[in-house]
Amino acid sequence: MPDQQPAELVRVACIQMQPVIGDVARNVERSLEVCTEAADAGATLLVLPELCSSGYVFETRSEAWNASEEVPNGPTVTRWSDFCRDRGVYLVAGIAERAGNRLFNSSVVLGPEGYLGTFRKVHLWNRENLFFEPGDLGFPVFHTPIGRIATFICYDGWFPEAYRACALQGADIICVPTNWVPIPGQAEGSPAMATVLAQANAHSNSVYVACADRVGTERGQLFNGQSVIVSYTGWPLAGPASPEDEEILYADLDLGMARTARNWNAFNQPLRDRREDVYQAVARSVPSPNAN
Amino acid sequence: MPDQQPAELVRVACIQMQPVIGDVARNVERSLEVCTEAADAGATLLVLPELCSSGYVFETRSEAWNASEEVPNGPTVTRWSDFCRDRGVYLVAGIAERAGNRLFNSSVVLGPEGYLGTFRKVHLWNRENLFFEPGDLGFPVFHTPIGRIATFICYDGWFPEAYRACALQGADIICVPTNWVPIPGQAEGSPAMATVLAQANAHSNSVYVACADRVGTERGQLFNGQSVIVSYTGWPLAGPASPEDEEILYADLDLGMARTARNWNAFNQPLRDRREDVYQAVARSVPSPNAN
Repeated sequence: MPDQQPAELVRVACIQMQPVIGDVARNVERSLEVCTEAADAGATLLVLPELCSSGYVFETRSEAWNASEEVPNGPTVTRWSDFCRDRGVYLVAGIAERAGNRLFNSSVVLGPEGYLGTFRKVHLWNRENLFFEPGDLGFPVFHTPIGRIATFICYDGWFPEAYRACALQGADIICVPTNWVPIPGQAEGSPAMATVLAQANAHSNSVYVACADRVGTERGQLFNGQSVIVSYTGWPLAGPASPEDEEILYADLDLGMARTARNWNAFNQPLRDRREDVYQAVARSVPSPNAN
Repeated sequence: MPDQQPAELVRVACIQMQPVIGDVARNVERSLEVCTEAADAGATLLVLPELCSSGYVFETRSEAWNASEEVPNGPTVTRWSDFCRDRGVYLVAGIAERAGNRLFNSSVVLGPEGYLGTFRKVHLWNRENLFFEPGDLGFPVFHTPIGRIATFICYDGWFPEAYRACALQGADIICVPTNWVPIPGQAEGSPAMATVLAQANAHSNSVYVACADRVGTERGQLFNGQSVIVSYTGWPLAGPASPEDEEILYADLDLGMARTARNWNAFNQPLRDRREDVYQAVARSVPSPNAN
């Protein structure tokens, strides 16, 4: 068998947009406009920001509730799914999910075949704790004809365990809907911490990472923009995008390379070099996860 | 009780030097010269590079063997310990350790009180596998009057689990003797991947990271230099140093801040926000650590 197979390039689009808090109809309309632009440009894997249908800075749980809807049968996922069917594309998008009486900060994965599944944000940031429940669906990896797609949301990416969970379950690419906020201490001209985290963890796991951030200021909260598509090598392929304007980033990815190039030399493959025995021994010796 | 205590600043020195392969006597002499310079400048926590007494690019196991010695009773650790006693300083330094018939790529932690302990590199890089055994001492954290000091070596820093192990066991600072080699794909003007990894993991764990690299080309292998001292915030405090010259980096650290500032807001503390339940469920569902 030949060692080299022909590459199948997947054009990924990270769509940086600015939702309007609480105006779901307007936001979904806008999301379909920019998704249409990306599909027209040949993208087959589209990523929209966190909570892009609802906006982010809720004042009350009622407000979050009113901007939430059921997955997959609510109107927004229905419209996004129809779009994916019509255009033959995959879409990863952030939504306020209502499940019975609970709310989740979720990301849905849709394709030409319809609804593929949901991720629910595991690590909630700040006042999200007032409105949402922590995710209870683990870190699912979705197997599709174009590749194995994982997704998590914003603050999940502060936890190297999230990247590991996706990579060890076979993800080629992690699609990250996000609403990044500024991190104090950044020097002028240096990359944002969110970029640093995506680069480090893409490299350590040999996995592609595609982050779609929102822009704009909502109720006094500034969002960072600077969406980025990072190679399995850890180096950016597209972006960081503008810190303030709506923008679509594109990159043509050979998703198989995340695996093919994972053998760094005759001895080292970063996922296989993990010493789970050592890590587990340490975990057993730590008196409490809250010790520090 | 007052919430704010007076800060005790620790001056850390990351000493970037160029060893000569196999010339232990010369290398130890040189290490003491540069350590003297750092102590004269007021540093009380000194970090030397990986394998700084032996050099790195061994051609045979015999050569590594001949450049190795016992810890703590061999001549190099004895001289380094004497230096620490004389000058009242702490030193973390890389050494080829002989233990019975086995060799380890180790880092010793010494202080005014003498020998504190050893870390043995857990993740061996490339041809190190020919000469050394993988570390069998976990990720120890050394409790000293100036703070809680952890140490690991070079490729260990490619594993977020190594940082987590140190932080969860209470480290304020991780001292990293290293021999970084270039990572392909770096764009001109962008930070080295080693810097990106140190920044991301310092930030995710709210822990200081002090990396002392070597410089120079040895038997055709170029080393990166670019030693760096990173704050618990993830932003560099000193460096990256020169990519080619010997140099000493200094930073005055309030080690308690790694803990004090770990509460990022009313809801989030990154070590406590970990969802060990979710990570363990994923780990149980992965068929084999070598599945990818």
